[in-house]
Order: sequence, then C-alpha cells, then structure tokens
Amino acid sequence: MITTDICIIGAGPVGLFAVFEAGLLKMRCHLIDALPQIGGQLSEIYPHKPIYDIPGYPNITAQQLIDNQMEQIAPFNPTFTLGERVDQLQKLDDGSYYVIGTEGTIIHCQVVVIAGGLGCFEPRKPELENLEKFEGQNVHYMVKNPERFRDQRIVIAGGGDSALDWTIFLKDIAREVTLVHRSDSFRGAPDSAEKVFNLAQEGKINLLLTHNLKKLHGNGVLESVHLLNKSKEEVIVSADHFIPLYGLSPKLGPIADWGLTIDKNAIEVNTFDYSTNIERIFAIGDINTYPGKLKLILCGYHEAALMAQSAFKYVYPDQKLSFKYTTVNGVNAF
Amino acid sequence: MITTDICIIGAGPVGLFAVFEAGLLKMRCHLIDALPQIGGQLSEIYPHKPIYDIPGYPNITAQQLIDNQMEQIAPFNPTFTLGERVDQLQKLDDGSYYVIGTEGTIIHCQVVVIAGGLGCFEPRKPELENLEKFEGQNVHYMVKNPERFRDQRIVIAGGGDSALDWTIFLKDIAREVTLVHRSDSFRGAPDSAEKVFNLAQEGKINLLLTHNLKKLHGNGVLESVHLLNKSKEEVIVSADHFIPLYGLSPKLGPIADWGLTIDKNAIEVNTFDYSTNIERIFAIGDINTYPGKLKLILCGYHEAALMAQSAFKYVYPDQKLSFKYTTVNGVNAF
Repeated sequence: MITTDICIIGAGPVGLFAVFEAGLLKMRCHLIDALPQIGGQLSEIYPHKPIYDIPGYPNITAQQLIDNQMEQIAPFNPTFTLGERVDQLQKLDDGSYYVIGTEGTIIHCQVVVIAGGLGCFEPRKPELENLEKFEGQNVHYMVKNPERFRDQRIVIAGGGDSALDWTIFLKDIAREVTLVHRSDSFRGAPDSAEKVFNLAQEGKINLLLTHNLKKLHGNGVLESVHLLNKSKEEVIVSADHFIPLYGLSPKLGPIADWGLTIDKNAIEVNTFDYSTNIERIFAIGDINTYPGKLKLILCGYHEAALMAQSAFKYVYPDQKLSFKYTTVNGVNAF
Repeated sequence: MITTDICIIGAGPVGLFAVFEAGLLKMRCHLIDALPQIGGQLSEIYPHKPIYDIPGYPNITAQQLIDNQMEQIAPFNPTFTLGERVDQLQKLDDGSYYVIGTEGTIIHCQVVVIAGGLGCFEPRKPELENLEKFEGQNVHYMVKNPERFRDQRIVIAGGGDSALDWTIFLKDIAREVTLVHRSDSFRGAPDSAEKVFNLAQEGKINLLLTHNLKKLHGNGVLESVHLLNKSKEEVIVSADHFIPLYGLSPKLGPIADWGLTIDKNAIEVNTFDYSTNIERIFAIGDINTYPGKLKLILCGYHEAALMAQSAFKYVYPDQKLSFKYTTVNGVNAF
C-alpha cells in the first residue's frame, strides 16, 4: 500500500502543478495515471505541438512544458503509478481514503484531487473493413512521432482540426499525403482548411473530398486504402500507413460512479477552493466545471493553487496555514 | 485622445497577460501605469529576485518574466502610457468610457480592466532627522540595482523580509553592511532571520538590534547614520548609503472614488468573469478580492483569461464568441 498526503488522479500539467502547490505547504503527493507516461494529453497526443498561451512562454512545445514542470516539482519528490486506471474509492472511518487502481494498487491518502483532464479518452474509430487487422502497425489513431512517417505514403482521414493540422505538418515529412473526407467542407479552422485547399491545388497533397472509407487492403502489411467516391465507384490509394483522426471520445470511467455531482462529463466544483460535493475530494483542470469555466491549462494552475490552501486543513488539522511567497521564502524541499 | 478596445490600468504581469488573452479575441489594448516602466512591482521592486511559482519555470527572475511576457504579447501591439496615474473615469452615453490620467491623457475605451496590483504604492518612511535631505542620492527606499552598492558602506534599517533578504544579498556586494532594527527579533521568515544572526556571528555583517534611528549626517553627501541604543546612547555608523526598508504602503488612489465595491483596499469581483459591480469594469490580479483569493501572479493570469471572454461582448456586441485553442489555431497577430 502506498501512503501519501494527497492522491492526484491524472499526471498532466495541472496534476503536476498541484504537486508544487501542495509541496509549498509541505504536503506530499502520489499521482496515478492510466497512461504509461507522465504528461497527460500533452505527452500522449501532441508532444511536438507548440502551445502559445502558457503565461511567460511566447511558445513552448507540450513536452517541453511537461519537462519543465517535472523539474519544478523535483524538490517535492512526487511518486507515480503509471499505466493503471483508477477504479474504486473507499472512505475510511477517520475520513481518509483508499484510492484503488484496476491493477490492485492501493493509495492511502487524506485528500483526493481529480486532475483527470478529459478522462480516459479513447480514439473514435471509423467504420471500415480490416481496420483492426492493421492496428498497432499501419493504423495510427494519433501521431506521436512524426518521424515515423518520413518518406512513407500516408492516408489521413477526417475533417476536423487534427486531420487538417497533421496533413499540413506531415506533407513535409511523408513521401505522399492523401487526405480523405466524407464531406466537401471541413469542420476545422477556416485558416487551416484554406491552407489544405492550396496545398492540394499546388499538387503537394492529394485531397479526396466526398469520399467514404471502404476497407484496408494488404497481405500482412498495409498496401492500400479503398474508398468510395460520390458515384459509389471504388477508388484505391496506395498507402503504407492509415491515420484516421476522428477525435477522442473522453470517458470519465469509474469516477462517474463515486457520487460526485457531474454535469456533461465534468465534475461540478465551487470556485472558492475547487472542492466537489464530497468532502476531501477536489477536481481541477479540464475535468471540472463551474460558471465561466475555460478548459485552459493556465486556469488549472490557478485551481491547483486554491485547492492546496484548502486541502491543508485535512492533512494538518492542528496547524494554522500561513501564506508565504516563494519569492521571499524560496522553495523548501522535502 | 487614445482610442482602444480595452484600457488596462496597470502594466504588471497580469495586465500584460490580459493583452494576450484580449488579443486572441481580436481586442486591442492600451495600458496606463503610474510607474515609468513596464512590469509593475516586478520591475520596480524586485527585478533581480527569482520567482519560483510561475508554472513551467523552476525559477525565473522577475524582470525575465516581464521580458518574456512582452515578447508573448508583441503580436498584439499593445500601446502604453507610462509614468502617469489614472485619475478620473467618465461614462459616455453609448456605454463606453474615458479613462483620464493626471497629466491629461484621455483614453477612450469600451472596457476598463483594473490590473493595478497593490495600487500606487509608496514606501513607508521612518522618522529620523535629515531623511529628505539625502533622498534620491544616498537614501533608497528600494533596491533597484544591487550593483549600485558595490564596495560601498551601507546601513539597512527594518525587521521584515525585505531588510533580511537584502542584508543577506548585499553582504557579498557591499564593502560593509549594517542592519539596524528597533526590536531584538525579526518579523521576517525564521530561516532568513537565522541566516542574518549567523552572518553577524561570523563577522560578515554588523547587526544592531534594539537600536533606534536618530538622524542622518553629512555635508551634502551622506557620511554617517546616527542611532540611539537601548540606553539612549548615541551610536554613529559611517555609511555611504542608507536603505530604510519598512515596506510599501499601497494606495488605491482615485480609483477608490469610482463607486466600486471595495473591501480592505481591494475591489470586489465575482469569479465568473472577474467583473466589478460596475458594468464594463473588471478587476484582475492583486487588486481584486473574492472568496478564496490568493495574491499570486498565476491566479491573475487565470482571471485575465476569464475576463477577456466576458469583455468580448462589449467590444463586439454583434458577434458570437467562439472559443479556440492556440495549439490548434496559433496566435493571429493584428
């Protein structure tokens, strides 16, 4: 059994910053995340993408932000359980909790902080024949490492921002990029759509609008993607990789059954300390909701700071909290 | 007359970040600040001090943070009126405002954002003879550039964190540092107090406790600081510079008369959008108050983001706001 002051569910940027704010108040944290690595969505979905709205960084890649945050919290020695989903919550008589993972890990803590982002998200899969057959090899639901596609022939499917952005990005890396979309217009940013139309006109990508996915073909290894055009004629595109980008479907998972007040897949909190309807359980970052809520990393940082002030009373019930500035006092490691 | 969408009062880190969040929504900003330079307290009081609690920065000096934020908002071309205090506010028939400065500058805007930090703060001055005589030359109420004191003999007075911190910092730069305090214990962080006691014991600084300030002496240039010890005997310390650090006394100034709801020198706001009791006037950063308020820069960043979403309806009354991520859309300059 792992014993800690605060169990943080979710090791994304907001969960990591909660370690810092808790640490300043001498509270220790253990983090548990379903993903196999630290960083949440940022490391999983868009590690190489620049973020522009982190205050003080004109731009920073998602992975660099996570790396910097890890350095920032190093003095507080957080511990991690990775690759394991949270399953059950058990309240003990003294008010503390057991957080129990799907692999049987038990974390005993005074306070639970849910920083689970959009929850455990799963890619939305398109319907076409043989999709599963090439999964994990030639079918990719997210682009983790663009270099993987250097000099390869790829087919991207989708009409949202991900499909547009990766088409634009990968055209410089891949040998051949084909973008397939069932409609004749895009849901993504007009700017990006315009870029894609221009690239098609310049012959730098293949753009197949009003085409539907039919099947994947190949003998062990993917050879081609078969489509149906508007007139229901089959169109065959040679391809080494197929990248369907239909977004992620977030799932709250077992947390939804803990008795928390939930509104549209998000946990309701108050803005005084981002506590939920259950004592000692807080929710911060994209997973919570309140009037005016914006799903921005920088907002999660603020929520983490106010949460920590309030969590203190459960970890140190006999102590009075005195607020101190790091600029004056520095960061005192454990 | 200056015409803009949003007039931001205060050019500290929170006011600067408001430019970014407003800019993403295509709103232009003009900033006015009583200080002669951009950066608020950070550039004025502690430019060389490291800050540890900016998310994603294990540490960053105050001035570097301001410099980075200026780079971040450069695409949005903010304009500035510096060295001029805000004086009056005039509401026009169409709901927009004139913000009028003490030098007569008029800023016509749709929205007013007060990001004034602790207000116009003034140093608390100790009572001793001839203080005014050496002001601006040998008397310093804040340490702007430590190099100024290299190889000089300095007397610091005060018992709080500033006095302790600068004593510790300047002992490596100045030729001789004397710390004078009227009591025999310090109000500052116990850690720092201990360091100061140790430095005194090691003979690296002079520590004069239970001494009161009497007068400054010098013929045109400061020569010595005269004190009274516990037994009311005069003690004379040779000195080139006198640095009284008794804190800053914040003043809301004329803003206090604008009809805003004020609680203990801070403007009351709601946490939905950080709006005040007066329509089109918002308050963000250290100058506002609400349940759970923490006076942290990172909280002001969050407040700026939510403010901008709400300010939009006054600047673009006929447009529907669509929320976009910079990671997807980038930052579109004006």
